[in-house]
Parts: sequence; C-alpha cells; structure tokens
Amino acid sequence: MSLQRIGISCKPDDQEVLALAGELRDWLQARQCSVLLDRSVPQATDSSCCAMDEIAGQVDLMVVLGGDGTLLHAARRLIGSDVPILGINLGRLGFLTDTPVGSMFDVMREVLRGRFKTKRHFSLCAETWRGGERKACGHVINDLVIERGALPRMIEFEMFVRDQFVFRLRADGLILATPAGSTAYALSAGGAIVHPEVEAISVVPVCPHTLSNRPIIIPANDRIELHLLASPGQAALNLDGQEHLSLQQGDRISVRKGRAFSLVYLPERHYFEVLRTKLNWAGQLETRR
Amino acid sequence: MSLQRIGISCKPDDQEVLALAGELRDWLQARQCSVLLDRSVPQATDSSCCAMDEIAGQVDLMVVLGGDGTLLHAARRLIGSDVPILGINLGRLGFLTDTPVGSMFDVMREVLRGRFKTKRHFSLCAETWRGGERKACGHVINDLVIERGALPRMIEFEMFVRDQFVFRLRADGLILATPAGSTAYALSAGGAIVHPEVEAISVVPVCPHTLSNRPIIIPANDRIELHLLASPGQAALNLDGQEHLSLQQGDRISVRKGRAFSLVYLPERHYFEVLRTKLNWAGQLETRR
Amino acid sequence: MSLQRIGISCKPDDQEVLALAGELRDWLQARQCSVLLDRSVPQATDSSCCAMDEIAGQVDLMVVLGGDGTLLHAARRLIGSDVPILGINLGRLGFLTDTPVGSMFDVMREVLRGRFKTKRHFSLCAETWRGGERKACGHVINDLVIERGALPRMIEFEMFVRDQFVFRLRADGLILATPAGSTAYALSAGGAIVHPEVEAISVVPVCPHTLSNRPIIIPANDRIELHLLASPGQAALNLDGQEHLSLQQGDRISVRKGRAFSLVYLPERHYFEVLRTKLNWAGQLETRR
Amino acid sequence: MSLQRIGISCKPDDQEVLALAGELRDWLQARQCSVLLDRSVPQATDSSCCAMDEIAGQVDLMVVLGGDGTLLHAARRLIGSDVPILGINLGRLGFLTDTPVGSMFDVMREVLRGRFKTKRHFSLCAETWRGGERKACGHVINDLVIERGALPRMIEFEMFVRDQFVFRLRADGLILATPAGSTAYALSAGGAIVHPEVEAISVVPVCPHTLSNRPIIIPANDRIELHLLASPGQAALNLDGQEHLSLQQGDRISVRKGRAFSLVYLPERHYFEVLRTKLNWAGQLETRR
Repeated sequence: MSLQRIGISCKPDDQEVLALAGELRDWLQARQCSVLLDRSVPQATDSSCCAMDEIAGQVDLMVVLGGDGTLLHAARRLIGSDVPILGINLGRLGFLTDTPVGSMFDVMREVLRGRFKTKRHFSLCAETWRGGERKACGHVINDLVIERGALPRMIEFEMFVRDQFVFRLRADGLILATPAGSTAYALSAGGAIVHPEVEAISVVPVCPHTLSNRPIIIPANDRIELHLLASPGQAALNLDGQEHLSLQQGDRISVRKGRAFSLVYLPERHYFEVLRTKLNWAGQLETRR
Repeated sequence: MSLQRIGISCKPDDQEVLALAGELRDWLQARQCSVLLDRSVPQATDSSCCAMDEIAGQVDLMVVLGGDGTLLHAARRLIGSDVPILGINLGRLGFLTDTPVGSMFDVMREVLRGRFKTKRHFSLCAETWRGGERKACGHVINDLVIERGALPRMIEFEMFVRDQFVFRLRADGLILATPAGSTAYALSAGGAIVHPEVEAISVVPVCPHTLSNRPIIIPANDRIELHLLASPGQAALNLDGQEHLSLQQGDRISVRKGRAFSLVYLPERHYFEVLRTKLNWAGQLETRR
Repeated sequence: MSLQRIGISCKPDDQEVLALAGELRDWLQARQCSVLLDRSVPQATDSSCCAMDEIAGQVDLMVVLGGDGTLLHAARRLIGSDVPILGINLGRLGFLTDTPVGSMFDVMREVLRGRFKTKRHFSLCAETWRGGERKACGHVINDLVIERGALPRMIEFEMFVRDQFVFRLRADGLILATPAGSTAYALSAGGAIVHPEVEAISVVPVCPHTLSNRPIIIPANDRIELHLLASPGQAALNLDGQEHLSLQQGDRISVRKGRAFSLVYLPERHYFEVLRTKLNWAGQLETRR
Repeated sequence: MSLQRIGISCKPDDQEVLALAGELRDWLQARQCSVLLDRSVPQATDSSCCAMDEIAGQVDLMVVLGGDGTLLHAARRLIGSDVPILGINLGRLGFLTDTPVGSMFDVMREVLRGRFKTKRHFSLCAETWRGGERKACGHVINDLVIERGALPRMIEFEMFVRDQFVFRLRADGLILATPAGSTAYALSAGGAIVHPEVEAISVVPVCPHTLSNRPIIIPANDRIELHLLASPGQAALNLDGQEHLSLQQGDRISVRKGRAFSLVYLPERHYFEVLRTKLNWAGQLETRR
C-alpha cells in the first residue's frame, strides 16, 4: 500500500500535542506526502483542513496524536472506512495508541516504507428504543455500558441473546465489550482478557447484586437486547466513555456487531507483550527486595 | 430488660407498611406498652408522635417496618443511643431487617417476654474537609463510598491509615464498610464477607484501574484519610446509600470508628444461616435437575 | 438423518445404570433399532458387544448413561468420528449429559423421529515432549490441566502462543479449556463462561502467585506451548480429569485444536437456560424469605 | 530489652546461607553476645549447638537466615516462647523475613541498641480426629489447608463455627489463614488481605464447585470444625506448607487460636509499604511506556 495522503487528528486543547502535530505535518510534507489536518487542529489552514467525517475518503492513513480517548474519538468516526489508524501515545496507558511518542518519527519512517501490518477490529452498534420509536444509535470501538447515574440506586435489566432470555440482573451496570475493550473498563469490572482475534463480545456486569454471577463471552454475531426494567436514578447508555445517551425505565437497547476499522502496528509488535508491559499482566513477584 | 415504651418507625409513603404500623401499635397498646410513632407515620396523633432524634431517650425498643433502607435510616439516627432496634422485613433482601413480616407478632411476643439478644455494631463516622474547613460530617451503619458521578471518568485518590500512605488509586470508587456493610455494596464490588464480631473495616475499591488490587481488612480503630486527587466528574461521598455529600478535587475525607448501635435478634438466629438463605452463599450445585 | 444403529455406553459398576441400559436396549430393539453395547456393559452378549473404538463406525448415534465423567470418557474416544452423542444424566450436575433420566424415553422418541439438533464441539489435542522425544499424547473435551502434585509446592512454567512468549508463572496449575470446559474446572478457578459457539480457548491459572493475573481467551486455532520450568513435586498433565500424564522439570507440552465431536440436543434446549438452572448463574437474591 | 544471647537458625543445605551464619556468629561474638546455633547449622560446635526446641529458653532473640519457609519452620517451633524472631531474607519474596540480607549487619546493629519493635502474631492450632481418636495435631503461623491429593477429584466437607453449621462445599480445598497467612496461599486463592492487627481468621475455599462462594473473615477466637465427607483421592491437611497429615473420609479437624509468637521489625517498617513493594499491590498502571 502506498501512503501518499496522510490525515492527522489530535487531542484538542493541548499545546504539546498541537506542536507535535505541526512538526509531524512538516516532516510528512518534506517527504512528499499530502497532509490533511482534522479541523480541531488549530494550525490547519483552510486548504488542508477537513472535518473528520469528510476526511475518510481523502486519506490513506490517519495518524492520531493523543491518548486512547483521542484514538477512540477518531476511530469511532472512521468505522467502516478502511482507513488504517496509527495511534501515537501522548496519554496515560496507551493501549490503542500503541506507539510511544518518542519513536514517532522512527515508526512513521517504517510505515511510509510499507513496513507495517494492519489489524481489523470489529465495532459494536447500538440502538436505543422507547416504545416503538428509535431514539438514538451509535458505534463503539471498546465498549458500551448501561449504567445507573450518580444516585446509588441499582438498575435492573434483562438481557436476551438471539431472542433467548439470558438473565435478569440488579447491578450498577452492564458492560458489552469488544476484544479491544476487554482490556479497558471490562477489565476493571472483573472481565477476562479477550485476544483481538477472537470474534466475541464480553458481557461483564458491574457490581452485580448476586454472588452467583460471572462474565460470559458470546459470539460476536449474536444480536443482543437489553430491557431496562428499573431505573431509580438517571440511567444512561455510555458509548466508549465518550457519548452519553440517557435512558428511562422501559427502554430497550439493541446491540449488534458493527462494521470494522483498522489499526496500524509495526510487524514486531506482539499482543502479549503489550499486556505484560502496559497492564503488568502476570507480573512475577520479585525477590529479595 | 423490661420493655414498656416502644417506638415504631416505618418506610414512608407505603400504605401496606403504614397499615401494619397501625396494627402493631394497637397490638402493643393492648399489652400495656406505650407506643411512640416516628413523625413520618401519618396515623400518629400529636400526643404519641415524636421526631426520631427526640424519640431516642423516650423508648426502650425501636421497631422498624420496611426494608434495609428504612432500617439504615432509623439506625443512623439512633447511633450512640443504646436503644435496641428490631427490623421487620417488608423490603427485598432484609439483611438487617431480619424478621419476616409474617412472624412479626410471634417475634414481638418473644421480645416482650425478654427472649431476645442484642448485638452491638459499630458505626463509622466521616468528615469532609475542603482547605482548612470542615464541610460536612455523617455516620454510617453499612458503608461510605467515595465515587465518581454519572460521567464515566475515574476518580483518583490516595488513602492513608494512621498517617501511613496506603495506596494511590484510579477507580470508579472506594468503599469503606463495617462488617454489617460487608454483605451489602462491598460484596457486589468483590469484597470478602466479614463476621459482625470482627472489629474491622473492609476497604474495597470499585472497578480499580489496575490488575493488582485486592480488598484489605484493617482494624476498626484505625483512623483513615482519603485525599481526592482528581475528580473529572461530580464525585461524591455516599453515606449508607442515603446521603450524598458532593466532593471537589483536593477534598479530604477523614473516617474513624463511630459510636455503637444495637440490633435485636431472637436467640435461635444464626449469622451463617442468614448468609446461606439470603445470599445463597456457598449454595451447592444441585443434581439431576 | 435416519437412526438405525444405536450404541449404548454407560457408567461402569453401577447397577442402577446397567439396569437402565438393559431397558433402553429392549426399548430400542422393539422399535427396530439394532443396538450395540459398549463392552463395559455386562448384559452385552457376544454378538452385540463391541469395544468403544470399534463401535464408532458401526452406529448412527451413541447414547451415554451416566454423569459428565461417563460422557467425557465416551466422547474422548469418539472424537473425529461424526457419531452424535446423547447424554442421559445419572450423575451430579450433568452439564454435558443434558437429558434428565426421567425423560429418557420421551427424548429418545423425539430423537428417533429426527426431532433433534447436533452441535459440533472442538477438542484439544496435547503432546508431551521430554528432550527431543514425544512421550505421550491425548485429546480432551473439556480441559487439560498442568498441575502440581500432592505436595504444596508451586510449579513454574512459561507459556507461548504461536511462538510468542505469553507469560512465566508460578502457580498451582494452569487450565486450558474448550468452551465446553469453561463451565467445568475453569469456572471453579475463576474463569469466564465461554459460549460453545465461540471458537476460543480459555487460559485460566489456578492459584497464581501474583496479584496481577487474569484469565485470557485466545483463538482456538492458536498453537500453544508450555514449558515446565520447575516442578518440586509430582507435576502432571491432567486430561479431562480422567487421564494423568506425569511430568518432569524441562518437559514441554504442545497443545492445538483437535478434531470435532457432536452432541445431540432437543431443539428447545437453550444454553443460557442450562447455565441458569445448573449453575444458578446470575441467580437473583430473593426477597422476604 | 537487653539482648545478650542470640540464636541463629538457617536454611539447611545452602552453602551461601551457612557462610553468612558463620559471619553473623563471629560478628555477634565480637560484640560480646553469646551465640547458640540451631543444630542444623554445621559449623556449630558441641558447646554452642542446641536443638531448636531447647533453644527457646536459652536465647533472647532468634535470627533466621533464609526465606519465608525457613522462618515458618523456626517460628512454628518457637510458638508460645516469647523469643522474638528476626528474619533475614535470602529467599524469594520474604514477606515474613522482612530484612534484606544486604542490610543484615546494619539492622543487627540497630537491634542490639534496642531500636526495634516486636509484633505479636497469633498461631492456629489444629487437631485431626478419626472416630473418637485424636490422630495428630500441629501449629501454624500462616495457614492450614485441607486439600485433595494429586488425583483431580474434589473433596467434600462441612464447616462448623462455634458448633453452628457454616457450609457444605465441594472444592479442591479450604484454607484457614491467620492475618500473616492472608498474603500467602490465601491470596493466590482469591482471599482478601487482612492487616496483622485484625484478630481474625480468613476462610478461603480453593476452586470451589459453586459460583456463589466468597471468602469469609471470622473472629480469631471462634472454634472451627471441619468434617471431611468425601475424599476420593489422598486428601491431606497441610500445615504451613511444611507438614502433611493424611486424611480419610470421615475425619474431623478441629481448629482454634493457638499461642502467640513475636516478629522483630525496625521502627520505620510499615505494613502497607511491604504490601506495595513485595506484592506490587495497587500498582498504578504506568504511562507512556
């Protein structure tokens, strides 16, 4: 794949990030790439600036500067577009934004030479229904979470998979996570890690009011429905921690596998190493210290 | 202990409960008890009605009709008063309101004969500080929870015990629970069950952003301090799920063991049986069904 | 599918089970089926008795009478044969032996009419190597477990997936489970439930000596290797809890997806219902009892 | 407390440790201490060598060189003796052997000056009964574990506390741990951390065959009884991972709080810091790496 046209999207309102975006633009232009900046990038001149939704058809690669939140934001708008996304980590953990900022130019050099692989990930697509009316819809990269609001009153809901009753539960919430999302909020709530190549959705309750629950992993192609039976507070459906759809008692949420998006990795990047270094997963207890 | 003066407190706005409260009052008066109704009980005439805070000095026993929420409400106002509390369960689970409503009169008969035991439980007492100023304080029977608001942004906090640094954590929240509270929200969040006679506080993080956390049980006499380092949403301190103190970044919460309150049990009531029947704890997987 | 030739295999040394096997044989013969009995069934006459390994090519359906252990035993020998297996539960939990004994004849009637579905499950295939030499191999339906012996000394091992280093761990053991096995020993050890249609292997450590472990779900097609680094006791590789291969320090275990086997279900049988009824999964805490 | 008479006990069969023991003896004798070596120390001459059980009355301090296993071994024989124990860590994790070997002489200097504190820990005392006959008894510092043998067949047992029925369980085993033991095997099995000053016993099942179990913390003074109902393999009672008492179906194990022993710490040693550094407890996920 020849990469001629590069988009840059970055974390808003962060001078360090914006300065880097400028540097990267100059560096790319010096290498005969055309660069399109996401409109949120202030240095963008009229001619090179483009709204994210339009950018998809005009670039061969999207570089995202920021943390996982910034990448989620960009990726959610590139779902279904086939534009591969390269995340440069300027945030905390950087699970999706895999490339440390210190090696940004080294990695870009490799990428421009074609020395990279892309990995397709599936998204989830959710619709909320009230009565017979569709209220809202959205896509997620990591997870969608149905959750109680600030008031400490559990919600109660039922879950169905392929029209089969799964369970009725009282809990703080319920997470439906892609494999990418299995290392995000679902992990904090006690879910298992799911390798990105497993075509499955993690169903992880948040603080369920029962001793006998346990996360379950279901096929990614299964259609899921949630019925919100009781919502004493301000329950909401949370999309990737970025969008907040308010819910009412009686609402139904229907979830199905959505279209794919692609992330860029260097060939030598290994998933298990990322788990070990970023999560300290399976860290050995050290000796004599 | 001779029980002459009985207080009745009950779940507000529930006709079934209020009718029962009336029946109980008549039943008690027929047995030469004087009865004081909590002001929230509408049938209360001027002469027998009393605000909860005043009621403490005027009764030998407080009967609470409702669920655990109602009992928490009553018990929080009787902390330190030595008035034993008998909970009649009209709610869901009834961990604190131990007596099923169906055996209310049988149990009351036993209690009036002196055939009961009381168990003292300790409370926790919390103060919130902003800068040098004390903002609020409160007591809890079950637990106090520092938690993020509706926005899915983790809070970050540090915990100190006896001025020793314990940990710094990013999480949805942190629960400090008495043994009574160990079977409430702390259990949903993954905490261990703590027998009511263990003098200890359970420290249970809610969805911590680390793989390496684990609940810890510390001595009840230890003074605990929490510093709220980051609160991107509307963090709050939650007292027994009933009171909500809003928090800001930089706030400090200081927690210490508070005064005791007493619950009434029949002699044949056993803690482990309650665990098994109410939580289905250690339920055997049954065969051939 | 027309079912003419039925095999019967049953739990050995159990008079109740053997009597039932006799009844079932008579019932089937009265319906013009030819019946082959597994050699372990004592009533078997010379003409109708067959060793399990030979039986595969001679029957259209295998009925197993016993518990999950009996079914595991039979299924392990039918891997790759395409003979569907119907389990009649005479044991404890009956996760694989799904049909209660009380409805055996009703279910058989439906099955002979063709009113059933079959579900293919994958097996796992393990080889143990010592130095350059292959020592043993075997297949599992549920799980293979590398574990320390009776001596309470942890084993230490490394795991590789597709030649990538995954982790080095000290633990009591490690479970590799199929989706069928995810509700067996892996569940006791803290693993997630994996729906049978997810093509994945659960990797679940048993009592790992680290706070930062967490089960992981990997693609079923991934080749796994385990290196036993330290084995202070009598470590072993356990196949479906039925076969025991002894291990020494330095041994390597190589695991890959094996051939399939098929289980028979009635059309109205639903996986989530089995979870709820057999595991009391997501059991609601009941009220007012 | 003036420390004149120092005992030294060390890990057997380890040249490095034995050499250090010799150095320490010389160093102590040069400071006018009399030194008694545990008999397992080969350099011991007749005059200074003493069996551990006799050593108790003849020393003011016992120094243990080795890992936690060595310290457990020594401490189990000093239970009830009031001789404080200082552990020098030459093993892996060193939770009990708190002093790194590199600072041994610095710490000893402080200790001889009286700059140390001692912390009393309680032990547990177990007896096994078969029919009416007491078969064996023993003391533990960390934990006692009733467990299945090498054969992967669950044991089944009942637990009673103060003669009250607690639960009946099928599992790989059950751990009863002191607070000191709560960070040992009980932690691997999913138990909570219990601060050493909490007077309580952790009851932690190992791989229980139910979804609805949860560890429980009970008062240290409670008398516990376990009945082994089924033991299809070679079940055993394991004391501190060091002693192995074989069990049969029908055996009863009675457990009560045993006598105390004392560990030596420097004043600046803090429990929570030990948790953080040795267990990586509550380790923050680091950023940008």
